[in-house]
Amino acid sequence: MLDTMLLHIDRQSSQAVYVQLANGLINLIRSGILKPGTRLPSIRVMAAELQIHARTVVAAYDEMAAQDWIYSKPRSGMVVAENLPDLKPRTFRTSLPAAADKSAAGADPQQQFRYVINDGFPDHRIAPVEQLIKLQRQAFYNDDVERTSMYSDSRGSFRLRKTLAEHISGSRGIAMTPDMLLLTRGAQMAIYVVAAALIKPGDEVLVGDPGYRLATAVFEQLGARITRIPVDDEGIDVDQIEMACKRKFRLLYIVPHHHHPTTVTLSAARRMKLLSLIRKHRFYTIEDDYDYEFHYVHRPILPLASAEHDGHVLYIGSVTKNLAASMRLGYLIAGEDFVSRAAQIKKVIDLRGDLLFEDALAVLFEEGIIQRHIRKSLKLYQQRRDLFCGLLEKELGDYVRFRKPDGGMAVWVQFDGRFKLSVIAARAGEQGLKMSDGTAYDPVAERLNGLRMGFASLNEREMKKVTAILRKILEQY
Amino acid sequence: MLDTMLLHIDRQSSQAVYVQLANGLINLIRSGILKPGTRLPSIRVMAAELQIHARTVVAAYDEMAAQDWIYSKPRSGMVVAENLPDLKPRTFRTSLPAAADKSAAGADPQQQFRYVINDGFPDHRIAPVEQLIKLQRQAFYNDDVERTSMYSDSRGSFRLRKTLAEHISGSRGIAMTPDMLLLTRGAQMAIYVVAAALIKPGDEVLVGDPGYRLATAVFEQLGARITRIPVDDEGIDVDQIEMACKRKFRLLYIVPHHHHPTTVTLSAARRMKLLSLIRKHRFYTIEDDYDYEFHYVHRPILPLASAEHDGHVLYIGSVTKNLAASMRLGYLIAGEDFVSRAAQIKKVIDLRGDLLFEDALAVLFEEGIIQRHIRKSLKLYQQRRDLFCGLLEKELGDYVRFRKPDGGMAVWVQFDGRFKLSVIAARAGEQGLKMSDGTAYDPVAERLNGLRMGFASLNEREMKKVTAILRKILEQY
Repeated sequence: MLDTMLLHIDRQSSQAVYVQLANGLINLIRSGILKPGTRLPSIRVMAAELQIHARTVVAAYDEMAAQDWIYSKPRSGMVVAENLPDLKPRTFRTSLPAAADKSAAGADPQQQFRYVINDGFPDHRIAPVEQLIKLQRQAFYNDDVERTSMYSDSRGSFRLRKTLAEHISGSRGIAMTPDMLLLTRGAQMAIYVVAAALIKPGDEVLVGDPGYRLATAVFEQLGARITRIPVDDEGIDVDQIEMACKRKFRLLYIVPHHHHPTTVTLSAARRMKLLSLIRKHRFYTIEDDYDYEFHYVHRPILPLASAEHDGHVLYIGSVTKNLAASMRLGYLIAGEDFVSRAAQIKKVIDLRGDLLFEDALAVLFEEGIIQRHIRKSLKLYQQRRDLFCGLLEKELGDYVRFRKPDGGMAVWVQFDGRFKLSVIAARAGEQGLKMSDGTAYDPVAERLNGLRMGFASLNEREMKKVTAILRKILEQY
Repeated sequence: MLDTMLLHIDRQSSQAVYVQLANGLINLIRSGILKPGTRLPSIRVMAAELQIHARTVVAAYDEMAAQDWIYSKPRSGMVVAENLPDLKPRTFRTSLPAAADKSAAGADPQQQFRYVINDGFPDHRIAPVEQLIKLQRQAFYNDDVERTSMYSDSRGSFRLRKTLAEHISGSRGIAMTPDMLLLTRGAQMAIYVVAAALIKPGDEVLVGDPGYRLATAVFEQLGARITRIPVDDEGIDVDQIEMACKRKFRLLYIVPHHHHPTTVTLSAARRMKLLSLIRKHRFYTIEDDYDYEFHYVHRPILPLASAEHDGHVLYIGSVTKNLAASMRLGYLIAGEDFVSRAAQIKKVIDLRGDLLFEDALAVLFEEGIIQRHIRKSLKLYQQRRDLFCGLLEKELGDYVRFRKPDGGMAVWVQFDGRFKLSVIAARAGEQGLKMSDGTAYDPVAERLNGLRMGFASLNEREMKKVTAILRKILEQY
């Protein structure tokens, strides 16, 4: 007979008592303690032992019978079903942590910080978010987006692809159609999808050194062998890429405009040579142009993808950088066939993007709101770059090396070897300043001892605070 | 000397004329027509030939000089930079389609439909979306979500994981902590991430037949060998899984609650046997429980994941089914170590989910709004199931086979062999009714000749319209 001590009823639980009882009994059956053919205690006995109402026991037994765990046997009452395999009796224990109270005890690991230095994101406070949210709401109540979403195009909202194709043709000199665009949740997913379409385990992939760790991580996840090519003040070393051509590598990943992390721009001479290598050796190149619009010294440099490359340059961009860090939309530009193949892969990863968000963004592009916002933020970020670099020089000049970037939203700042970035970042955290400890770069912190300091999202007051906190930490190091 | 006929200025373009000129010249340099050392026409000549203002030419030359494409040589004017590799002259053409006007001509391929039969999604018209959007807006202006998003936990919003862990512990009998939860963009991404963590090319994966094509597609994309196990009225054939254990397969994918597409529930006896096989042979099992809450005959059956399995059952659920098709949030429940590994993979695919959406959802769970919505929709969907199955019987009984499902949001409907689903779907499209042609199932349409008809999102008027349209098509077939 069943020892009712094995059953635990929690009256504080939001779960109905009869459900707790039924689930407890089912677990005992599954764990082999209650064997097929065993009689369950009568309703009266069970109710008395557990000090619950008889009706509750009836409800639990009914539920279990409906699920075929037990059945009513004449003159025996409820009996555990006999067509269940006979499992060896064993102690009922779960390999999962015991109780839910750990979750109650666990505090939010996301500390609150007064100041944050990010990797180079826009200032969300100036983004046209009110309109965006209003439009998302409208898109939701526009019945068709919602009703037909399961039949949607896996390349993403046609409306957004159409207006984005026009925007890109105009701003980047890439002659294109909506069918050459694949929308993704941020540029990261575009990198993943392209790589998944191209890489087999064991393939060689070339990346910059230093480089963007999360791109390298994609290629590693897909089983690629990574070869690191040095990046200097003119960008990635194209002569070394040329040498690698002898052994037929599969894919090159570059960030020619504002290299991550060091923000350098690939020189015109190297661009030319790289294009000729791509044409001659026909290797695939991911051109990650994540913050194209934000160039302050001259107009943005035309992407490699705007030149002749016979479909071997796969261009990746981001709308996130025009809006806010949490509003993620990236895209891939490639030939229609490649986009179709990539869309199939995207679909098995992320069924159908965020159609409401995509349609709302489309309206913002159609009405020129994003374009105006880009022009406005370009001016603001240029001022902030100048201001921040001035502060870096004045307050931290004795401790750091940096070069004022021609574009982008971050300065690459390296600390003098006496000061370890990981230590600085930890102490900054204690002062309420969250900053990178360098682990987002490839190779990681130790060698580079530097971080990208995003200036675009900091106003003057915040910049002064941030540099003051860092100065104090460095003075007292 | 340069033939200015090669330069095309479009005064209607939204792109500034000086930018068009600079980009045109850069393209000529890149394509080898303008060779290193070549003198550019003087400002006066260029302006006259192109009939543009001299200041525009100056701006273009300044821009190009800033980008290092040309330089000012004493007594020669502007000259193409000499440190560019000497490329063979070639016609400048792009492998990309010629003009952007194709995009203007291309109509939205997404037709408008008056009626839509989906795969089994909730009715978005009753979802608590107003609150959700309001909360998303609040989350955006709560500075910290946005500012610290790049430092966010790759498992997803802690706040949502915490409240969801409580909800799941209570409703599904899985003792768990927030650290055992990974949030994803829909259940599809959870399947992908789990599979990417476990599968190497060549590994054997077992799936149901018929089954969910987009799960099979994940395993195929990752290079797995697929073995199909028959699914009958009691669910997947566990005896055949037992036979497969002899050869040590890697992963089993099952939908035990409401199998996709046929909606059958795995019988208690087979569940028991499957659990004992998992314990004995220690293969990994993805338990896809995408619409757990929606069971009408009895309480939902406890997941396999709630029993003892030593971490070999990876449980996947969906919040999308509680809200609306376009509002995608899925999750994985597994041991903490596995979740950490999966989070690393998720991060390289989708940097950091939609934090604003996740935090807003957290509030809806904390306040019990989703829970109330689930209870409310459960009642409504049960009524709709009964109504729809009644209509199917009455209007289409001569043409179709189906079984009233115990749960879920769809009926599995198979047409009599005389009527081809692909033909019916095409004709329905002409009548303004969008429905699946069966290609979302595995294996595809031909053999099954059936589709899932989602009833949850259709009100009475729509159901009557839909069945009337189908009846007419079948009568006139």
